[in-house]
Amino acid sequence: MECLKWFSREYHDLNGSHIQVLDRPPTPLEFSRIAHISRPVVIHGLHIPATKDRWSNEYLCDKMKDRPISVSVTPNGLADAVTTAPDGISYFVEPHVELMTMGDLLSKFDGDTTRAYYLQSQNGNVYSAAYFDNVDSDFSEFDVLRPDIPSEIHWCSKSFDKHPDAVNLWIGDSKSITSIHCDPYENIYTVVRGVKYFTLLPPSEGWCLQERTYPHAQYIRASPSTELCIKPSPPSTPTIRWSSVGDPNLPGALPDEANPINVVLQAGETLYLPAGWWHHVRQSDEITVALNWWYDIEMRGMTWVLLTFLRGTDSPMIKGKEDDMEGSEVEEA
Amino acid sequence: MECLKWFSREYHDLNGSHIQVLDRPPTPLEFSRIAHISRPVVIHGLHIPATKDRWSNEYLCDKMKDRPISVSVTPNGLADAVTTAPDGISYFVEPHVELMTMGDLLSKFDGDTTRAYYLQSQNGNVYSAAYFDNVDSDFSEFDVLRPDIPSEIHWCSKSFDKHPDAVNLWIGDSKSITSIHCDPYENIYTVVRGVKYFTLLPPSEGWCLQERTYPHAQYIRASPSTELCIKPSPPSTPTIRWSSVGDPNLPGALPDEANPINVVLQAGETLYLPAGWWHHVRQSDEITVALNWWYDIEMRGMTWVLLTFLRGTDSPMIKGKEDDMEGSEVEEA
Repeated sequence: MECLKWFSREYHDLNGSHIQVLDRPPTPLEFSRIAHISRPVVIHGLHIPATKDRWSNEYLCDKMKDRPISVSVTPNGLADAVTTAPDGISYFVEPHVELMTMGDLLSKFDGDTTRAYYLQSQNGNVYSAAYFDNVDSDFSEFDVLRPDIPSEIHWCSKSFDKHPDAVNLWIGDSKSITSIHCDPYENIYTVVRGVKYFTLLPPSEGWCLQERTYPHAQYIRASPSTELCIKPSPPSTPTIRWSSVGDPNLPGALPDEANPINVVLQAGETLYLPAGWWHHVRQSDEITVALNWWYDIEMRGMTWVLLTFLRGTDSPMIKGKEDDMEGSEVEEA
Repeated sequence: MECLKWFSREYHDLNGSHIQVLDRPPTPLEFSRIAHISRPVVIHGLHIPATKDRWSNEYLCDKMKDRPISVSVTPNGLADAVTTAPDGISYFVEPHVELMTMGDLLSKFDGDTTRAYYLQSQNGNVYSAAYFDNVDSDFSEFDVLRPDIPSEIHWCSKSFDKHPDAVNLWIGDSKSITSIHCDPYENIYTVVRGVKYFTLLPPSEGWCLQERTYPHAQYIRASPSTELCIKPSPPSTPTIRWSSVGDPNLPGALPDEANPINVVLQAGETLYLPAGWWHHVRQSDEITVALNWWYDIEMRGMTWVLLTFLRGTDSPMIKGKEDDMEGSEVEEA
């Protein structure tokens, strides 16, 4: 643990909390340098059809018509988050998923105040690996929106010398929150409508987020008229390693040594979020629409080993971490 | 120490000992990707005037005439290396430096078998920072060779978005050896004549090289006719942190966990040696001429912190290392 604290202190002393802002998208070479430094950058001026003020509710409904789309539903806005169930156990809970039309979804944001709806299927819901591999199984609930959404960001694909692994559409409002986590992906994230509020921590501050192992559960609803409830998954379901700090913005949630960075991303702005950076995401009250392009992390070199080390996963560090766990609510499934 | 061993094992499991060979120099973007991965690459086809078979002894003498050049002289070929003096103490010993003409130097390689001569002034002896900063103090002992030596490697300068920090000329033979060490520079190293034999270890295997702190000394000669002897520097001279493994090729010099990589670099070939990689260098019997371009390491991001961590310098790791030191010959000056 001392190693991790030393590393995070040195990293912050050298890099501070500065976030670079570019007034135009980078060239492939400029972006390659940026990705090498591996710090978040806000990019203005990424013009794609979706960001050209055309994605009104009417436009989206007209394009999508009554095609069914998969929407996450929770009572509290916490999809993919640690939640304590009535049995007193903290689970990693996945959302209930309902199929509805785009019109249904958009009307929920003004109407249903008892549940949180979030289009966040994040499985490459616009373009998945199947699209790039040119296989017949390529399917998207949003294929009619594809003309407005480029399948790749050219300066990013050129820089990494690869296609994205997944391109996703996100639609939600302030009720939906993404709990803090990190991904093994380089991420290009563009806001189309509304505002996104990111709280970021560098990979070196992973120790501040106290990852624990949680049993898996899911919100279910027996019938459309009954309330959502947490259903623990069978004991054979693998446990989930997740931060026990859901919202780093709550007072006392982080140790004094943490240096969270807040980034407000307006419509038309793009965030480069490097692989391994921790992020908690909130949205404005209005309907917030975003797109993201995930590129696989570079496995050669030091990056993967370093990120694994800094998370403590599978490293000697994990022992030190688990020694710290007394008093936590962790249960092994 | 366990952290460092874990890191080096994981790094090797992921990367192996493969060295990529390019049949032509990379583009700036290709090189940026290579530098991001930060593993050595052998590059063929870097054509500069110096490598066009023109640098015969006659040519070099004709160009240089009787200009004085600074040459390192040692009794054993170990310039900048740990050597045990007659007083029984191991010092980090710098070479004696003699001024001579190019003709003098080249004749030494066939003639004087009792001493090792190595042109290795490595202070930007062809182009130094003063050249790139355009200041009046720009001076090179080899300025007449500059037309044969480009001041920068364009794909490297474009990739890093900077000029080199130093460009050096090296001339030696098999008597001169460079003890294993690492530099805080990205290094482009081209062999002009002869053959260079590199033994490389990744930054993650720094713990195998047992860095220690040594008092400083220098070879001196009271007069041209007396023998070279080691003169300890005044106690106020800072001690030098250096590997106590001089030659990693000797049996038993490295622990079983080390994975040294041997690279033979022929005339006309270029090695990209990333910042922080450990290297031991030998040369062929024939006169071996080489050039290198050093570019400052990128200080932003994780690289510097990681290299510092892996060397144990200034980190909690150093404690573990110094605990291991019983039985070593280290003396603090």
